[in-house]
Amino acid sequence: MNSMRTVRLLLQYEGTDFQGWQSQAQGERTVQDVLEAAVKKITGEDLRIIGAGRTDAGVHALGQVAAFETSSCLDVPTIHRALNAVLPADVRVIRASQVPDEFHPRYSSLTKRYVYIIVNEEQVSPFMLRYAWHVKRPLDVEAMSHAAGVLVGEHDFSAFMAAGSSVKTTVRELVSLRVSEGQESGFFGFALQGRCIRIEAEGTGFLRHMVRNIAGTLVEVGKGGMKEDDVKKVLVSGDRGLAGPTAPAHGLFLEYIGY
Amino acid sequence: MNSMRTVRLLLQYEGTDFQGWQSQAQGERTVQDVLEAAVKKITGEDLRIIGAGRTDAGVHALGQVAAFETSSCLDVPTIHRALNAVLPADVRVIRASQVPDEFHPRYSSLTKRYVYIIVNEEQVSPFMLRYAWHVKRPLDVEAMSHAAGVLVGEHDFSAFMAAGSSVKTTVRELVSLRVSEGQESGFFGFALQGRCIRIEAEGTGFLRHMVRNIAGTLVEVGKGGMKEDDVKKVLVSGDRGLAGPTAPAHGLFLEYIGY
Repeated sequence: MNSMRTVRLLLQYEGTDFQGWQSQAQGERTVQDVLEAAVKKITGEDLRIIGAGRTDAGVHALGQVAAFETSSCLDVPTIHRALNAVLPADVRVIRASQVPDEFHPRYSSLTKRYVYIIVNEEQVSPFMLRYAWHVKRPLDVEAMSHAAGVLVGEHDFSAFMAAGSSVKTTVRELVSLRVSEGQESGFFGFALQGRCIRIEAEGTGFLRHMVRNIAGTLVEVGKGGMKEDDVKKVLVSGDRGLAGPTAPAHGLFLEYIGY
Repeated sequence: MNSMRTVRLLLQYEGTDFQGWQSQAQGERTVQDVLEAAVKKITGEDLRIIGAGRTDAGVHALGQVAAFETSSCLDVPTIHRALNAVLPADVRVIRASQVPDEFHPRYSSLTKRYVYIIVNEEQVSPFMLRYAWHVKRPLDVEAMSHAAGVLVGEHDFSAFMAAGSSVKTTVRELVSLRVSEGQESGFFGFALQGRCIRIEAEGTGFLRHMVRNIAGTLVEVGKGGMKEDDVKKVLVSGDRGLAGPTAPAHGLFLEYIGY
């Protein structure tokens, strides 16, 4: 009989056709279910795969981390190759490695980085629409960047949490929140010019919809509808109703998880 | 009463969710239908929109050209804005202009350029999978490039035409066919390295599946399964059975139409 081993996966997925990371009672297509079905095909085991970040429907991942315990006798490189052979093309295993049994993707993580992309142009190319929020009104990036500074640090982020969430504490630490501007130049050699705004949020943990609610609020600042001081008031109030709208899921990427 | 005017549109679309350009009896979602429905919403007219290239299901367009005749009193910039307001996000009007009545998107065109993208890596990022054909085996780009030279010029391209097509003549002129290699560096600032091969085909006209059948044949050459001389034989034979497989639709882009 084989001993149990813990396998850690580094994953990328294109969120468009997934109802998020987490398995759902209703049998919607989720990344967790698709991965568990792939492992079952390979090892025959009915097991649970734990993910570090429970991304919502439509959210993309460039660096999701997941882990599972297996008693399969297959070596890890074989599991890696076999998973990519049976997985659908919109989810890929980038790396697979054996880790100590005490490894837990969520509890062991020290930091997570999300990136939110906005295309700030009158028109947006249909080749960007799955990967960015299209905001037509020109945004004041400097004002957004200053207002972002208000949110950095350890705070009660209730005002930026999805309504109806239940968590032990709504205090989180935002290690950095950067707003930068760039020009997207295209893909595969095709020129697709466009002004892009990138919001990069790194923290020890995030509440549900926290990055998207921060992005929506910073866009209000960029439009001139809110000032830096208003963001401070929203944060202190703990009132979700005062913050900006939730930015759409398809502009959000889980970029990196640090251990 | 208003006089009729001809409006020309420059279009981009992301082909993933379209059953191609051309309206179909079965009521599938096509670019032509979606555009005609959008015009009807704006002007109330039931009219036919003519496209320059009848792209197949899944094929993308960066520079499709279409035209329609309207008796609407709206000016062209208003039609442009209104179309983008009512069209779904996966098809965009890049430019709209009034043209002489004798303009016909297909018959007036002098040249068309298609680009076929291949990701030539063991793994492909899920963020590229909608826009490239994933070929794992390393391809010999130089051999592909030389073999491509055989196809340039005016030839009977029967061997590269979809079975069951009916056209007056299968002679077409391929003005250029270039195979080049590059490194895709990412999108929106995310690093997504990968070796990409780009096949650029410019011609006065193309048969159904012609670019995809050429791409599939050149990939056979790149793998070493066919030689430059074999491609010459395939071309001369006029036998579709001798050419390579049809490359998948999602790697193909209609890039440019010249008038």
